[in-house]
Amino acid sequence: MRFSRYYVPTLKEDPAEAEVVSHRLLLRAGMIRKLTSGIYSFLPLGLRTLQKISQIVREEMNRAGCLEVMLPVVQPCEIWKESGRWDFYGKELLRFKDRHGRDFCLGPTHEEVIVDLIRHEVRSYRQLPLNLYQIHTKFRDEIRPRFGLMRGREFIMKDGYSFDRDEEGAEKSYWQMYEAYMRIFERIGLDFRAVEADTGQIGGSFSHEFMVLAETGEDTICICTSCEFASNLEKAEVVRGEVEDGPCPPLEMVYTPGKHTVEEVAEFLGVSSDRIVKTLLYEADGRPIAFLIPGDRDLNEAKVRAHLGINELRLASASQVEQWSGCEVGFAGPIGLSIGDIYADRLLKGRKGVIVGANKKDHHYVNVDISRDVKVGHYMDLVNISENDPCPRCGGPLRFLKGIEVGHVFKLGTKYSRAMNATYLDENGKERYMVMGCYGIGVSRIMAAAIEQNHDQHGIIFPPSIAPFEVALLALDVGDAILMKECENLYNSLLEMGIDVIFDDRDLRPGFKFKDADLIGFPIQLILGKKSLKQGVVEAKDRKSGERKDLPLEDFKEHFLTFRDEVWKAWGI
Amino acid sequence: MRFSRYYVPTLKEDPAEAEVVSHRLLLRAGMIRKLTSGIYSFLPLGLRTLQKISQIVREEMNRAGCLEVMLPVVQPCEIWKESGRWDFYGKELLRFKDRHGRDFCLGPTHEEVIVDLIRHEVRSYRQLPLNLYQIHTKFRDEIRPRFGLMRGREFIMKDGYSFDRDEEGAEKSYWQMYEAYMRIFERIGLDFRAVEADTGQIGGSFSHEFMVLAETGEDTICICTSCEFASNLEKAEVVRGEVEDGPCPPLEMVYTPGKHTVEEVAEFLGVSSDRIVKTLLYEADGRPIAFLIPGDRDLNEAKVRAHLGINELRLASASQVEQWSGCEVGFAGPIGLSIGDIYADRLLKGRKGVIVGANKKDHHYVNVDISRDVKVGHYMDLVNISENDPCPRCGGPLRFLKGIEVGHVFKLGTKYSRAMNATYLDENGKERYMVMGCYGIGVSRIMAAAIEQNHDQHGIIFPPSIAPFEVALLALDVGDAILMKECENLYNSLLEMGIDVIFDDRDLRPGFKFKDADLIGFPIQLILGKKSLKQGVVEAKDRKSGERKDLPLEDFKEHFLTFRDEVWKAWGI
Repeated sequence: MRFSRYYVPTLKEDPAEAEVVSHRLLLRAGMIRKLTSGIYSFLPLGLRTLQKISQIVREEMNRAGCLEVMLPVVQPCEIWKESGRWDFYGKELLRFKDRHGRDFCLGPTHEEVIVDLIRHEVRSYRQLPLNLYQIHTKFRDEIRPRFGLMRGREFIMKDGYSFDRDEEGAEKSYWQMYEAYMRIFERIGLDFRAVEADTGQIGGSFSHEFMVLAETGEDTICICTSCEFASNLEKAEVVRGEVEDGPCPPLEMVYTPGKHTVEEVAEFLGVSSDRIVKTLLYEADGRPIAFLIPGDRDLNEAKVRAHLGINELRLASASQVEQWSGCEVGFAGPIGLSIGDIYADRLLKGRKGVIVGANKKDHHYVNVDISRDVKVGHYMDLVNISENDPCPRCGGPLRFLKGIEVGHVFKLGTKYSRAMNATYLDENGKERYMVMGCYGIGVSRIMAAAIEQNHDQHGIIFPPSIAPFEVALLALDVGDAILMKECENLYNSLLEMGIDVIFDDRDLRPGFKFKDADLIGFPIQLILGKKSLKQGVVEAKDRKSGERKDLPLEDFKEHFLTFRDEVWKAWGI
Repeated sequence: MRFSRYYVPTLKEDPAEAEVVSHRLLLRAGMIRKLTSGIYSFLPLGLRTLQKISQIVREEMNRAGCLEVMLPVVQPCEIWKESGRWDFYGKELLRFKDRHGRDFCLGPTHEEVIVDLIRHEVRSYRQLPLNLYQIHTKFRDEIRPRFGLMRGREFIMKDGYSFDRDEEGAEKSYWQMYEAYMRIFERIGLDFRAVEADTGQIGGSFSHEFMVLAETGEDTICICTSCEFASNLEKAEVVRGEVEDGPCPPLEMVYTPGKHTVEEVAEFLGVSSDRIVKTLLYEADGRPIAFLIPGDRDLNEAKVRAHLGINELRLASASQVEQWSGCEVGFAGPIGLSIGDIYADRLLKGRKGVIVGANKKDHHYVNVDISRDVKVGHYMDLVNISENDPCPRCGGPLRFLKGIEVGHVFKLGTKYSRAMNATYLDENGKERYMVMGCYGIGVSRIMAAAIEQNHDQHGIIFPPSIAPFEVALLALDVGDAILMKECENLYNSLLEMGIDVIFDDRDLRPGFKFKDADLIGFPIQLILGKKSLKQGVVEAKDRKSGERKDLPLEDFKEHFLTFRDEVWKAWGI
């Protein structure tokens, strides 16, 4: 491709709308443009990267025996009502009526459509397993779309669905997809981790997320430095030996004037914050509920939802707190609380001599023996893991990393096949539910995540696997006919080798060309100016390392391929 | 691909929902499935054909210097209000609100989005011309979706948009696209015609449609048998020499009891129907309007809209007719009609001795001299051309054909750039409007049109360019190890040659395999049974001609490639 005939509206200035580096650089490099909040157009360069990512995903899905389909964006309400999600799914499911007044939605995911498709066609165990996927447009009406392609409303996803005869088959399909995902992210060349994850709104029994490591990631992942354990913070189990608190004097109410927060109470009473027990009041699917957790911990709402099967969970309002605890916010406690459901974190089991709110303004109880003084309904793992906790698998030390979720595999079990009656006849002619898995990759989000992980002050540093062009050939003086002739030779050589090359033949000063090439992040720059030409070489630059090397024009192909090998190797691809 | 691991749910019976042959065969061949009215899922086989069509389109667009982009499906109302189409576009534009109550629509076409994109980026004449396209999902909320992929609501289109400095540049872009479209349909191997067309709702000054010829086509196209003239019936101009009617006696009202229709009046008065003048009353953008046309002709509403710039046009109701003409339906006429706007077809100019309704029950006027007796506002071309009319270009004889529109190119001029203020600075620093063209191809509709044109009683006859697989290799006895080994050899040979082959290795009787292969319409069938194997040959069948030939297994590649060449040649590809 000749740059002069291409459309790459690069920007010199940082666009005001961009909040994160990938958004800023995708806009500046002329790869995407915003149409409206959370909705982007892909310009030619951006689409090339998107297509390269899609192609890697497609190849690995096909290699794993999956079959590509294309399912509708617009979906009728009936199947969503059948699965139960028409009511359950929040406002992210954009609903509307067609001209005849019938209810439809824009597909944020396609479990309903695929189950509807399969249940009418697959009747026998002989037709299973089946694994279908698509790479297509999705829409989620995010309340606050942001960060460009990281959290858009309209985006491109690969979503796949497996149908098996039984749990064993489903397990096999799951791990096949897990392996395929590992290969996909390895081929792209990203630093990533597969981590255990919460199953969220899709539902199901088990899942892994694939996280691209980046300081700007919204997710925290927790890895063990001595075993293979890796988990989303949301999911990681907190495991601790029992604490021996020693004997506990009788319960006593103390005056703690104006001390609302854990820190204030701990300081006032001269104890460490882990001796304070926080009583958190929530409204869970319409009923009041209380959670007791150590003062130095944070409640993990994902765990609460998962353990208790709660759909809508929100912190009680000040007036609800006052109504339920009988006093103003800051002094609620479990003793004498008029709420039936009290759940305590496992870390509190058997604790003695701890401090809780007294449900009375400016008062706390001290010398609390949880088993003796508090009516706990259930103990469960309710809090976020901390970097000081031991690995829940091996007890080893943990490390936290920031990540961006780019893939997610779920074991769905029979959730959707039961709801929508997707059955088959087994070897004995008995009707059974298909066992499902579902598997997503955020194709357009990978583009953003790759940039969050790989960039510098000059711009994007694209992995060669997904760069819009692998090589940028920069002609430093388009007025020089001899130089241009040599450039044309190089350009044709590269095309002959099947290399994806963009030839910067624009009538611009070298500085502009260098800046654009660095900004867009072509992995290899080949720079030909008069000086190089005189010496019979072309300068090759590795965008990632910044290393430069003169490649002789004689036997150029050979020299180039050696240089190229090194570039790819440095990416571990 | 091995058939046993593929998902092809063929149907033995014709599905009740299918109205046309392509719809029936696409369902029976397991290529598509209906999700809901006008919305289809593409199964693996169907998607392969769709992708092959897309790839041919993509290659030819790129070859013509166009750049691929991807624009959003969901579009904000603001740009549609700016172009004026938010109000103008009918209910086919599906509108809805997002969670914040803002107005959006599903894109049926992307003029607004692309102009919005370009006007913010392109400032100088140096950046023009520019020609961008995408291949993506579109949605039109058809009132009566039908015929499967022929008239769906959600469908796949290639839409492209050119931006030029001036009319001359736009003309050049237009013809480049015209040529690219010719190459696309030639490469696919369809029998098609490029015809002059009406510009319809997109607007603009000039256009061609690309029509796949098929008896089941909804459009009628009109071609000259002696010159190059080819036009959509809607657009074709009716040209006739003046008729010399001779002298005309004075106007006379006659009694025509109960004679409402042209035929009844003509028979009653003993004249030919072309001597009767039909007076058609319409409501055009809210005001009454009358059209006079010869009794043997049909009003062409597309011409009316185009000539008069009318948006909403509907035949007057019975009560409107009574109100405007002062009598019941069937006797309206132009003489003394209380409607200001009377338009007459050019064929009526100078006619004498014709008959019109008298605006009085059971009465007509005879001996009407149009120039003498009728106040005609304008004469214009208002009627459909007939097969007996002369070619409007050369006067030669015409022929009518049925066609399916699969492509459409438009010269838009400055319609959208003016409405949305898309300007650039010319060589002299003067601000000018960009001159646009737009170019569409119905990618999913091509799939249906190809089948409407190419099928027989056994199923689809796919052109090899877009068949889901070019070759089906049928193993007639999967229990025979020696035969299966030879099939594996053939399969691997074909894969090595880069041939798109599906290997029917299913444990089914030969009859099933023949039926499926014919139904799906693989262009080449290679059939290996015990008898052939004994003779050292594999039977090759050309799906289109039905011809069979034994290809020696020795030097198979060579024999196969010769056979294949013949198959492609017969398609003219």
